[in-house]
Amino acid sequence: MEKVNLKKNILKKEIVKIFKKFGLKNTHAIISADALINAELVGAHSHGLSRLKMYCERIAKKIINPKPKIKIKKISQSISLVDADDSIGFVAADIAIKKSIRNAKKTGIGMVAVKKSGHYGLSGYYAEQAIKKNLISMIYTGAPPAVSPYGASKSLFGTNPICFGTPTGLKVPFILDTSISMINRGKIRLAARTNKKIPKGVALDKFGNPTTDAKKALKGVQLPIGSFKGSGLAWMVDILSGVFTGSNHAGRVKDPFDDFSGPQNIGHLFITFKTNLFVKNYNNRIKDNIRTIKRLPKIKDIKKIMYPGENKFNRFKLNSKKDIKVSKIIKKDLEILNNYAL
Amino acid sequence: MEKVNLKKNILKKEIVKIFKKFGLKNTHAIISADALINAELVGAHSHGLSRLKMYCERIAKKIINPKPKIKIKKISQSISLVDADDSIGFVAADIAIKKSIRNAKKTGIGMVAVKKSGHYGLSGYYAEQAIKKNLISMIYTGAPPAVSPYGASKSLFGTNPICFGTPTGLKVPFILDTSISMINRGKIRLAARTNKKIPKGVALDKFGNPTTDAKKALKGVQLPIGSFKGSGLAWMVDILSGVFTGSNHAGRVKDPFDDFSGPQNIGHLFITFKTNLFVKNYNNRIKDNIRTIKRLPKIKDIKKIMYPGENKFNRFKLNSKKDIKVSKIIKKDLEILNNYAL
Repeated sequence: MEKVNLKKNILKKEIVKIFKKFGLKNTHAIISADALINAELVGAHSHGLSRLKMYCERIAKKIINPKPKIKIKKISQSISLVDADDSIGFVAADIAIKKSIRNAKKTGIGMVAVKKSGHYGLSGYYAEQAIKKNLISMIYTGAPPAVSPYGASKSLFGTNPICFGTPTGLKVPFILDTSISMINRGKIRLAARTNKKIPKGVALDKFGNPTTDAKKALKGVQLPIGSFKGSGLAWMVDILSGVFTGSNHAGRVKDPFDDFSGPQNIGHLFITFKTNLFVKNYNNRIKDNIRTIKRLPKIKDIKKIMYPGENKFNRFKLNSKKDIKVSKIIKKDLEILNNYAL
Repeated sequence: MEKVNLKKNILKKEIVKIFKKFGLKNTHAIISADALINAELVGAHSHGLSRLKMYCERIAKKIINPKPKIKIKKISQSISLVDADDSIGFVAADIAIKKSIRNAKKTGIGMVAVKKSGHYGLSGYYAEQAIKKNLISMIYTGAPPAVSPYGASKSLFGTNPICFGTPTGLKVPFILDTSISMINRGKIRLAARTNKKIPKGVALDKFGNPTTDAKKALKGVQLPIGSFKGSGLAWMVDILSGVFTGSNHAGRVKDPFDDFSGPQNIGHLFITFKTNLFVKNYNNRIKDNIRTIKRLPKIKDIKKIMYPGENKFNRFKLNSKKDIKVSKIIKKDLEILNNYAL
């Protein structure tokens, strides 16, 4: 498909303008635009501009609250609860990770739950913020039904990413940000929008048959990694992000693209802690860890052993030097949103 | 293979006697015997009596310290570090989970790291203790090399279990205790000892070829769930349990059965927290979660959707009413250890 090149700073201004037109205040529009552009730069296009139209539609329908009254409740020196008042997820998550960082800096460990939030983009984006403050983080979020619990023929769990980030003492941080599905739902969604096929063995259609048709997969069930093991990990994330935080769980998070009947009420959980709680030389220890693993003998066709986050970092570095390439479909979205009469 | 029935209380007395003979003090012998018998009762035979001889051999060689001076260092109200002084893993873990529980009861969240420990049996056994005090737990431990990092032809990560436990408000707790390998190393080890085959697709031999021969698999490489995703999760556990706690990592944990050249210096990390930090009705919320998921339509041949921990609980209940069945090999172990001249 033909692509269009857009300059980053011009694109950012345009997104901010669009978000403000739909009612977000300036700071919230900037936070959201930065997150979307970051997703493009790390190559996670399914979490980038392809979602802009959806966010704007939800704001227009007031199921994302453009003027939220976000409250932070102190539970203890280490623990806080953010009631996001149905804000756009980026803003809720930005407030929460910053609060979790402050709590961890004060007490060694921070735990911040968020309720009444929405889709916040990439978990790894928030892990990065913690890493810049030299903290380890564990991040969990809810998501709309996509994966079937082991034994069930209907999807209920989200792709429920497990995210773990740590400083490495190297330029490139270690950020594991992995869904428990065989592939990310965003990738299937993008394939459906751009009429591409998905790999075998990652999804079933609504009749329970294997499919490589992205549109059929979206109506069917995604498969978890390691069968009942992945299903158990998804269940854990559903409990941590939903049951525990006071947010939607058990399949009740609405699909942001398909269901405009109300807010998503997604929950997030951010746990952050200092690297030097138990050792003085954490950076040297993790550098040694990474070096040792990278030196292992490799299997055929593998030149380098990469740690989680390296690929994304490399893509970010490469893409940051260039204009952002977007499909004609998305360019059209931008024009429509720019000309949208509220 | 022919089995021998042994009464639980008599068996416990015998194990305690053996551990004491090898130099453990009475309380440590009881903690260790209870953990081994619990593993048998939940059906995790690979973590039960089949390890007794190994533990005793390591104690006899003083690479498990029979008389450890275990130190607990307070880092903050919530955070503690246990230096286990090469104690048997069961004792170090028992002290650590109890400390983590006390910290969580005081401050809402507890984090306890352990260094200089050894194999501690089943992570879920410690999650159970937290659940009895109405706490959620996340538990990580190191393990000897078994799984190859994505792209490597040599094993380095342990099977690195991820453990998550939570009260459910029901009789049966939710305990996810899952290795990131396709199957547990203990199961392969047991298959090797009892001359059984292992399933296809879970391991490679030392030449990188698929194998169903348990003995060849032990010399080769185990495969992680979800390829690079499982590899990333294993790497996370290696960092949390090893790099972060000040313990062995990057493949340096010695195999307890094969390598008697020194202590294992395994690290553990216990994180515990209260269920009601953010919601008042946690038990009702999780009951609703479980009920909703159990009611989903099922795939062919599945009668019930089970949550993690249910099978183990049911086996425990069933086995608790009966004598413990052990193989003749293990009965022989018990006799040899009983007659061992130090």
